[in-house]
Amino acid sequence: MRGMMMGRFQPFHLGHLDLVQQILQECDEVIITVTSSQFNYLKKDPFTAGERIEMIRNSIKESNLDLAKCIILPIENQFNIATWASYLKSMLPHFDRVYSGNIYVQMLLKNSQIEVVPPKFLEKEKYNATQIRSKIILNEDWEYLVPHAVSEFIKKINGKNRIEIINTSDTKPTEY
Amino acid sequence: MRGMMMGRFQPFHLGHLDLVQQILQECDEVIITVTSSQFNYLKKDPFTAGERIEMIRNSIKESNLDLAKCIILPIENQFNIATWASYLKSMLPHFDRVYSGNIYVQMLLKNSQIEVVPPKFLEKEKYNATQIRSKIILNEDWEYLVPHAVSEFIKKINGKNRIEIINTSDTKPTEY
Amino acid sequence: MRGMMMGRFQPFHLGHLDLVQQILQECDEVIITVTSSQFNYLKKDPFTAGERIEMIRNSIKESNLDLAKCIILPIENQFNIATWASYLKSMLPHFDRVYSGNIYVQMLLKNSQIEVVPPKFLEKEKYNATQIRSKIILNEDWEYLVPHAVSEFIKKINGKNRIEIINTSDTKPTEY
Amino acid sequence: MRGMMMGRFQPFHLGHLDLVQQILQECDEVIITVTSSQFNYLKKDPFTAGERIEMIRNSIKESNLDLAKCIILPIENQFNIATWASYLKSMLPHFDRVYSGNIYVQMLLKNSQIEVVPPKFLEKEKYNATQIRSKIILNEDWEYLVPHAVSEFIKKINGKNRIEIINTSDTKPTEY
Amino acid sequence: MRGMMMGRFQPFHLGHLDLVQQILQECDEVIITVTSSQFNYLKKDPFTAGERIEMIRNSIKESNLDLAKCIILPIENQFNIATWASYLKSMLPHFDRVYSGNIYVQMLLKNSQIEVVPPKFLEKEKYNATQIRSKIILNEDWEYLVPHAVSEFIKKINGKNRIEIINTSDTKPTEY
Amino acid sequence: MRGMMMGRFQPFHLGHLDLVQQILQECDEVIITVTSSQFNYLKKDPFTAGERIEMIRNSIKESNLDLAKCIILPIENQFNIATWASYLKSMLPHFDRVYSGNIYVQMLLKNSQIEVVPPKFLEKEKYNATQIRSKIILNEDWEYLVPHAVSEFIKKINGKNRIEIINTSDTKPTEY
Repeated sequence: MRGMMMGRFQPFHLGHLDLVQQILQECDEVIITVTSSQFNYLKKDPFTAGERIEMIRNSIKESNLDLAKCIILPIENQFNIATWASYLKSMLPHFDRVYSGNIYVQMLLKNSQIEVVPPKFLEKEKYNATQIRSKIILNEDWEYLVPHAVSEFIKKINGKNRIEIINTSDTKPTEY
Repeated sequence: MRGMMMGRFQPFHLGHLDLVQQILQECDEVIITVTSSQFNYLKKDPFTAGERIEMIRNSIKESNLDLAKCIILPIENQFNIATWASYLKSMLPHFDRVYSGNIYVQMLLKNSQIEVVPPKFLEKEKYNATQIRSKIILNEDWEYLVPHAVSEFIKKINGKNRIEIINTSDTKPTEY
Repeated sequence: MRGMMMGRFQPFHLGHLDLVQQILQECDEVIITVTSSQFNYLKKDPFTAGERIEMIRNSIKESNLDLAKCIILPIENQFNIATWASYLKSMLPHFDRVYSGNIYVQMLLKNSQIEVVPPKFLEKEKYNATQIRSKIILNEDWEYLVPHAVSEFIKKINGKNRIEIINTSDTKPTEY
Repeated sequence: MRGMMMGRFQPFHLGHLDLVQQILQECDEVIITVTSSQFNYLKKDPFTAGERIEMIRNSIKESNLDLAKCIILPIENQFNIATWASYLKSMLPHFDRVYSGNIYVQMLLKNSQIEVVPPKFLEKEKYNATQIRSKIILNEDWEYLVPHAVSEFIKKINGKNRIEIINTSDTKPTEY
Repeated sequence: MRGMMMGRFQPFHLGHLDLVQQILQECDEVIITVTSSQFNYLKKDPFTAGERIEMIRNSIKESNLDLAKCIILPIENQFNIATWASYLKSMLPHFDRVYSGNIYVQMLLKNSQIEVVPPKFLEKEKYNATQIRSKIILNEDWEYLVPHAVSEFIKKINGKNRIEIINTSDTKPTEY
Repeated sequence: MRGMMMGRFQPFHLGHLDLVQQILQECDEVIITVTSSQFNYLKKDPFTAGERIEMIRNSIKESNLDLAKCIILPIENQFNIATWASYLKSMLPHFDRVYSGNIYVQMLLKNSQIEVVPPKFLEKEKYNATQIRSKIILNEDWEYLVPHAVSEFIKKINGKNRIEIINTSDTKPTEY
């Protein structure tokens, strides 16, 4: 059986990693879907799809998880949300079950023959990507909230600086 | 002569129906243009184009209006608004007159040889789709503001639940 | 019960009209879906969506069919064809059955809970939009292949001239 | 050497013109890139790309600058911002240097072999397009902040009225 | 008065330059519209918009024409061709007259209040961009068909090699 | 070091698998990029991105290769090919080297700091996806040209039937 989880992973944190572990205890393989893959260098989406996939791979490698069982794939957001279940099916390998506590996701996948299972979230208030990005800007500790591999990677690509610049500059010639 | 009216119709309410009636008193046929047709499952746009067209048809059927005189068509929103008049002309059958009290619409259709006529709105503050969606969420009475056919249809597709879920879930993997 | 038929209708011909009649004998209402609605002024797609909808309405009016039972709606073509059934469902009111002899359509709608019924086509070789456009260019008789309302409409918008120009001019600044 | 500057130019003001002058003192030619070119008739973007290009040309003509040295070109905004430097290079003639005080721009152009030079801005708080649009709405003096050619052009196209209508009308059928 | 001419300019040749000259004899300024601006590295469109604009500027500089009177601007192709006149108007500064011998262009601009004037083409069979690209591939003389500035520019960017590679490689991972 | 290879993989065949093996002998990890990922149910692109990723994973599993070292990712085709190198970098994890014999790819990646290495292809005429799809239609033997896992998968999803239908039906309502 294959389970699927999804997120923007801006960045991938210990709550996400814990969910990967949960799923691998119940399923043979897990698809980790990186949503909003077309966005980057934005307040809510500072990292590119490629960078997010790298962070997730590195985190799985450094934990005791079997990378060969993890299928990490990007998904773009679509305008016509009513076709979302169908879009997921076309872009991802088959999956039997989605792990999500989001009632919106549950609604969209109803009538799609995909089972939605609410996962046990590891301290949801603590592990939260929005807060992690805030802490990075405010110079607070945040590294303990993400896998070591993620803080290493963000350091390597100078991610703190990127997030600060995105949040500081008031006007951007690239704004949509 | 053919009149045109437009709206997102999220949902179609008695004010809209009243306008259809007004137009049919002055014109041979009416085009009812469903704007933002590509959007759905969003706060401001919970219903799909297909569902909105169904609601409008059902409302017209249950009233004394002649459905054969009503041309209900979807229109997507465009980025380049300066071409909007031209886009309408390409996607809709010919129309002589637009019924709209919106000065923005009047401005966009100027120079397009389309006459814009301000309609008499039925108690504009009372019949308002944004407020109807709010009432649905707040469990207040709203059914009396829409044609019976609309409240029936929303019930049938479990629309109250959909609107609540869209408004409750804070993050959505599908957000643009 | 609601039946659905689809086509580019470039132009709408007597074979199409015959199918509308067939469907209305078996169903309460028919959705006539105008595909490739975003295209126009092209060799295969000379007429705009608005013009095609007008031609279909006029044809139904002049026949003995009940226009109130005919739901004429445009559909854009999509890149990701695997999501096509889902896209149709989001953009059109509910339908129970598609009338199509196209095995490709049958394949795409499989797994979508939509029944596909092969219609009896009225002399398929004779009533064929590609051939009608050829005849128009070659100055051959073509009017007898379409409803009178269609040949009238094409005359009114100077459609013969448009088709000839599209086919003559070798380079177009608008080519995709 | 060719310098490049960019902006939405909604509208082009004396601060922008001053920067053109600065660049032409240091470079042989200047590319003036009109960003967000696909947007118009919006609060932040009332003028079309064509109108903005016209305003800039007229302003340069009326000053002592050499129009033959000014390359005014539109650029659309893109979703995938990580490819922005590459997109600029494909759509613009070669340039050696970008004049921008925006650290976000500096970040995006790093690794692109394009030098970014912070310009001396002419009283940045005073010359500010957002404030100019506000003043237009509030009926305050604003003409002294833009080249004479710009206030003339805005008068000619009835731009004050356009900006007021865009800001007044609460709902727009064209909203994205 | 402002005249407008358009082309893909793959590459800009002496026939194009001659037309610029003609227009400047009759008009105060000329808009040179570079169509299909979003395409490049393709058989029919080897050069980027930026490169084409550079070639045109260089050609005008080296001739006796006044660059300050030439407005060179890119235009993307659109799907919905029926809105093309309106799109041109939104993206370009005002123009009074289009110089084009193309009856397709004449048709699209009818009803747009833009006059279309057929130009006198300089030996149309001789000066032809498709043939120039063929000659480049076949190692035949082609430089005499383009302004000296264009052959210099193509040499500088190694354009002959690019065109050959595009035509040789049978499959491309980037094909649409 | 990380190597990258790319293809449409319609379907993934033994030549592709051989290249994966080559790369893993020289690199630590391989990115297998599935191009044209947005296309499916088309003559040249019958399989969805999800199906192609599944075929590749299954093939690697059944061979002696280490799936944990294989990063299989989809890439959409883009219009503006001049930005392709930049687009690849944004959507994929870092890679040092691309294995490609395609001079077009080599040209596009020049100036991108990515090394392009021509691989040794396993009997290129024999292992060819276009021919495999032809053989499937013609009922010729083709299974020996693909990994066993691929022929099994195609059987399971009834892929032969899909390819036949795509090739038989002359008109498709979904055609772009």
